[in-house]
Amino acid sequence: MPFVNIKVTREGVTAEQKAQLIEGVTTLLKDVLNKNPSTTFVVIDEVDLDNWGAGGLPVTEFRKRALNT
Amino acid sequence: MPFVNIKVTREGVTAEQKAQLIEGVTTLLKDVLNKNPSTTFVVIDEVDLDNWGAGGLPVTEFRKRALNT
Amino acid sequence: MPFVNIKVTREGVTAEQKAQLIEGVTTLLKDVLNKNPSTTFVVIDEVDLDNWGAGGLPVTEFRKRALNT
Amino acid sequence: MPFVNIKVTREGVTAEQKAQLIEGVTTLLKDVLNKNPSTTFVVIDEVDLDNWGAGGLPVTEFRKRALNT
Amino acid sequence: MPFVNIKVTREGVTAEQKAQLIEGVTTLLKDVLNKNPSTTFVVIDEVDLDNWGAGGLPVTEFRKRALNT
Amino acid sequence: MPFVNIKVTREGVTAEQKAQLIEGVTTLLKDVLNKNPSTTFVVIDEVDLDNWGAGGLPVTEFRKRALNT
Repeated sequence: MPFVNIKVTREGVTAEQKAQLIEGVTTLLKDVLNKNPSTTFVVIDEVDLDNWGAGGLPVTEFRKRALNT
Repeated sequence: MPFVNIKVTREGVTAEQKAQLIEGVTTLLKDVLNKNPSTTFVVIDEVDLDNWGAGGLPVTEFRKRALNT
Repeated sequence: MPFVNIKVTREGVTAEQKAQLIEGVTTLLKDVLNKNPSTTFVVIDEVDLDNWGAGGLPVTEFRKRALNT
Repeated sequence: MPFVNIKVTREGVTAEQKAQLIEGVTTLLKDVLNKNPSTTFVVIDEVDLDNWGAGGLPVTEFRKRALNT
Repeated sequence: MPFVNIKVTREGVTAEQKAQLIEGVTTLLKDVLNKNPSTTFVVIDEVDLDNWGAGGLPVTEFRKRALNT
Repeated sequence: MPFVNIKVTREGVTAEQKAQLIEGVTTLLKDVLNKNPSTTFVVIDEVDLDNWGAGGLPVTEFRKRALNT
């Protein structure tokens, strides 16, 4: 009965993409650990850009300076 | 000084119901572990239906096919 | 399909007490929100005293100075 | 590569204050544990007042009765 | 820069299986959301059986009565 | 009444360093948001190296190949 929490920045993730994440991670847990999909829960948190930091900076600023993530 | 995080689907939970959850879980921790209510924190996360998965499906789809949760 | 995470300090919580917490919070979610117990998950985290802080101090020190929690 | 999650009540935290939290905690991890800022992530969760409990009460009520937090 | 937390029961998950989970979920986030693997973090929590509840029961008891998860 | 969770790899963090993290983040929240230290909680999770992934690899492997974190 795994529980998976996926945190990503809130940037227009679609319902279809969320469904793909849910299906993909559930299948992964079945394939690797033989976990029953019916008791695998997934929660996706979408985090506003101002609320996510990396490199000591809000992510928007971090991306400008450093990486294309 | 317990910290409790309750995640539920966002489906019209009222302020009164939230207050009942907060009171109930705080009382539970006092009764079972003798924890001081004044330093028991509770955070309730309401999760959009598209963002919660079970059985490899978004919860709305999961419920249609399987359980009435 | 709620998910509840209870964090408490690691101070000899027994298996019986854990079972009481699991049962109590599951019943609470059924009573308040009509959630199906069979899809309610609870995870208890026991946190070493050095790893829990309050009032800017490790909890052992905090308790000495301030509260009996 | 630390990951820090800061939960505060949703009460008008500004983008500037969020940036200060991100910078401050990233610097702290560099100073104390020599962690590389470029791989330190920070996520700030702002929690509605109805969804945060303390002392067995929603935080608004808790503050009225007890502490000025 | 996603952050993924996978919670599973502590039942002998091997280092190789953990590596497969890390690789799989990182690839999933690249495929679905085009996230850069180098800034995707994954944390796996292994939870003692006594500390995981489902159906109002510790998981060992829950499995006996209900599901083979 | 903030709640802060700091996740770091388990690599010999001392009790003194943990105390510094607790004090530092509590002071930060007081300085930036005027939060009362007595109701600021901090929980530090130390994560085994096998259980932390970055770049699609367990962290030990990731470090060899890429960054000195």
